[in-house]
Order: sequence, then C-alpha cells, then structure tokens
Amino acid sequence: MRGDTKHLHERLRAGDFLALARGITIVENELDGYGSLLLNLRENIRVPVIGITGPPGAGKSTLVNALLHYWLKENKKIAVLAVDPSSPFNYGALLGDRIRMSEFYTNPNIFIRSLATRGTLGGLSAKIIEITSLVREAPFDIVLVETVGVGQSEVEIAGLADCTVVALVPEAGDEVQTLKAGIMEIANIFVVNKADRADAEGLFRNLRMLAHERAGDAGETPVIKTIATDNTGIEELANAITTFVARQDAIPDKRVHLLTEKCWQLIQRERMKNISHNKLYNELAEAIQRDDFNLFAFTKNFLEHSV
Amino acid sequence: MRGDTKHLHERLRAGDFLALARGITIVENELDGYGSLLLNLRENIRVPVIGITGPPGAGKSTLVNALLHYWLKENKKIAVLAVDPSSPFNYGALLGDRIRMSEFYTNPNIFIRSLATRGTLGGLSAKIIEITSLVREAPFDIVLVETVGVGQSEVEIAGLADCTVVALVPEAGDEVQTLKAGIMEIANIFVVNKADRADAEGLFRNLRMLAHERAGDAGETPVIKTIATDNTGIEELANAITTFVARQDAIPDKRVHLLTEKCWQLIQRERMKNISHNKLYNELAEAIQRDDFNLFAFTKNFLEHSV
Repeated sequence: MRGDTKHLHERLRAGDFLALARGITIVENELDGYGSLLLNLRENIRVPVIGITGPPGAGKSTLVNALLHYWLKENKKIAVLAVDPSSPFNYGALLGDRIRMSEFYTNPNIFIRSLATRGTLGGLSAKIIEITSLVREAPFDIVLVETVGVGQSEVEIAGLADCTVVALVPEAGDEVQTLKAGIMEIANIFVVNKADRADAEGLFRNLRMLAHERAGDAGETPVIKTIATDNTGIEELANAITTFVARQDAIPDKRVHLLTEKCWQLIQRERMKNISHNKLYNELAEAIQRDDFNLFAFTKNFLEHSV
Repeated sequence: MRGDTKHLHERLRAGDFLALARGITIVENELDGYGSLLLNLRENIRVPVIGITGPPGAGKSTLVNALLHYWLKENKKIAVLAVDPSSPFNYGALLGDRIRMSEFYTNPNIFIRSLATRGTLGGLSAKIIEITSLVREAPFDIVLVETVGVGQSEVEIAGLADCTVVALVPEAGDEVQTLKAGIMEIANIFVVNKADRADAEGLFRNLRMLAHERAGDAGETPVIKTIATDNTGIEELANAITTFVARQDAIPDKRVHLLTEKCWQLIQRERMKNISHNKLYNELAEAIQRDDFNLFAFTKNFLEHSV
C-alpha cells in the first residue's frame, strides 16, 4: 500500500481529482496507507482555507455557488468541502444545498466533496485538519469549507480556517447582538445575505455597530450585503476575502497561531485515542454502586490501571 | 494542609458556607490541599445539578431569583454557581444580574458564588465538575449552575447538568428553529420568559412544534411560559424540573452517561496538562521555516521528543 499512496501524492500534485477523492476516502475512513499518506504531504500553507458558516437558511450554498462562478472567471481552481453536521435535524436542507451545487460537479477547476461528521466533535476537527492538508497537496488556489452553524461545530471548524465568513439573513434582526456572541467572535467577515428582504438594513446596521464596538488592532470586521441569487455583492465579498487573507499573510504570527491550534487538536485526539469510552462507562457503572464512590479517585485509578 | 482540608470536609458536611467558600477558592486556584480536598469527597449524586442557560437578556437571573423564592418556601437549601464567560462583551449584563441576586447573599439557605472562566473552555468544564462535586459535599437540595449562552461554553456546561433549562425571550421569533439548533439539542426544558411580550405566542408555538418534531423515547421537551418578574409560571417550571430529575433518576444509565462525560473531561485535561502551548507555538514557528514542513510529522515528533 505504501507504493500506492506514494503514487497518490504524485497524482495529487498533478491535480488528479480521482486521486484526491480516493485520498480523502483513505483519510476519512483511516484505511491502509492513511498514516504514510499524511506524513508525506507538503503542508501548503500558501493556499488559504476559507470557512463559510451561518445558520441553516442563510443561503450559504448559494453564496458558495456565486463565489465559485466569480472565481472561475478569474481562472482559479477551488476545492469545496461541505461538512454535514450529524444532526438529522438539518439533513433535508443540506441535501437540497448539495443538489444546487451539482452544476459544478463536472467542472475541471472545481472539486466538491461532502464530509459526514461521524463521531465526536473533537474527532471531527482533527479529521477536517487532515483532509484540508491533503486537499492542499493538489494545486488549488482556494479551499472553501462550508459548515452549518449548529452550536459547537462551526466554532471549532472556524478556528481552523485562515478566514471565516459568517453569513446571516435579515430575520436575525435586533437579536443578533445578544444571541450569537459565540458566532460573532469567530467572524472575520460578515455577510448579510438576501439583502433585498425587509429588515436587511436593520441587521446590517446592527452588525456594523457590533463590528465597530469590537474593533481591535486589525480594524473593524467588514459587513457585506449580498443577494447571492443574482450575484449582488459577490465581487465585494471575494475582494474582502482576498484582502483579509493577504493581511493575515503579512502577520507571520497568525499563521503560527493557527497551526498551533491545529496541532493542539491533533495532539488531543492522539492523547485520548487509547481511552475507551465504553470501558470508562462500564467501570463507572460498577464503581457508583459503592458507597465511597469519588469521581476524582475513580479518574486517577482509571488512568493508572485501566488504560 | 492535609489536616486543614480534612477539617474542611467536616465543616462542608455541616453546611458551613465559609468553609464552602474557602473550599471553592482552593479548587478554583488549585491552592495547597486542592488534590486531597477533591479525593476525599463523597460524590453525592443524589443532589441534582440544574443548568440554566440562554442568551444575555433572556432574564436568566430573574428566573433564578424567582426559583429561589419558590424553593425557599419549600424549605430547600440551594447553591447557585454563576459562570461568567470571560468575554468582556457580556460583562455589563452579568454584573447587573449579580447585583439583582444580592438580596439572597445573607440568606442561610442560599449559597451564591460567581466563577470566573479563566483559561480554556476545556479547562472550564473540568473546573466546574470539580466545584459542583465540592458543593454537593454540603447538604444542599439543589445546585443551580447559571451560564450565559455564548457559543461553546453553554453546550459544554449543559452536558454536565442533570437537567438543563434553556431560557429564551420572544424576540427570538421564527428564527428559533434555524438559528439555535445547538442550544436546542441540550435543552431538557424550554422557558419562554417575558411571556407578556408581543410575539411570545409565536416563540411558544415554534418551540412546541420543535419539541414535538424532536420528541424521543423520553417524550416531548416541556415548553413553559414564565414572567419571572411577577412569578408567573415559576411553580410550573419548578415542577417540570422536579419531574425531569425524578424521571432521570429512574433511568440508571443516565447517571452513568453523565458521569462518563464528566470523567472524560477530567481525563482530557489530565492528558493535555503536560503539553505546553507556548512550547508548541515556538517549535512550530521554527519548523514552518523549513521547506519540508509537514504538520503530521511535526506533531508526531513533538509528542515523541518535546513532551
């Protein structure tokens, strides 16, 4: 298998989409050759990873579509990774989104892959890190990672992108200031999509005010109005992404910070990999029967004797 | 110091609030005696930990106030832990909330403590686990943990409570279905607070519909209308909490699942404690200068040689 994955690297570097699809499957499922495939990548940190997140219904996939059309005209090669949260709750919407993107499936400059999010969120981050590194082995200009904003996952994944775009829709209204402080903190660029709807101006103003209040050394977070269905604001968004990435590239620390976070996630997964959730559960079920059960003594003992 | 913390256990079991405050300070700051203090607790899993979360402005502290008045009339002893997210963004609101609760500060049946959330979120969970175990050494009937819903933290903390109440306000409107899937998944009870406001009925109906769609083996998540400022709905909420906790207690697995999660958090912190973020950062800063930098080889090497 080692020879196979070596061959795979050459094909990846040549931009062979079939090889890339095969490589992702190997990494996703940790098939034979998984380790050596990753260990022999060049970490191509010059290719920016752009995260696009936001609640279901914010039109993220339409935005991605519009950005793809824009970048294709500029002769860019783009990879899109769409991360499906495992919640069955969002399944319908995502399926629709995927179908809308199907027009690109045969385009030689666009690679699209949906990633299922099996297992824990912590494991998901590590897996996305592996897959984005793999994708950057191929000659792309941009890697887009689209996630649905459902609680924890988008915060984790945004922490791994060079630039995070948060898409919102007018219905958010006044509430935006209070409700989504978590999402606010990860946004490098805000998009008010479906900006032709009533209340778009209110959301736009609120986000601008918020961006102003929270402006740091890097200045205010841009807020951009788009109507992705007719390409309104897409050029401005593409420029904002390019500007943000270029500014990040000029700050060497930023790249190291991001890599430190990625490495931290990989280490955490490595450190926890020999901890069996089932074994922990079974030993706990037995231990709590005893009158002198103490969680901290149990944990200490488990680490000393059961791992 | 060992003698000191032994003495502390006796005072804790006698319900001495000064000893409890001292114990929390020891655990919070990992002072001398911290380890033995925790290792000598009886894990009093019979005292339910109730999490109350929701966005800033949802009236969580007013709800807590009203619940405290209700439970005091029932001769309950209650501990309240208020977790302040470190984001300066929410500081003003929380300070106000704390002041509103001050009427209870001298009540012998109510213990209130604010916990600062320094450091990482992962570390926060482990710290809250330790502190709730400590608090349960004292003879309380209920431990309330109030957190502001800002992204990741409330999801983590809710995972550690026996019952999680999510408070929302009418402004959430239609959006609730899409925006907050993350929060939805952690709720055992929904509260529509400020139910006298316009749109309260809309939010209530949406939540009911959502609860109905997502009903599992345990039935539908209750949705309760409250006006905490005049105690409307508080008895119903208190009863819903009692009912939920009693039902949980009847399912032995639930308790083991919760303890498994707590233990997992403690193990994760233990496993990561000798990983220096600074060292990782510095070694990465050097490594990425090299042409053949590979994140996975770096991680492997770091774990083998630098830890």
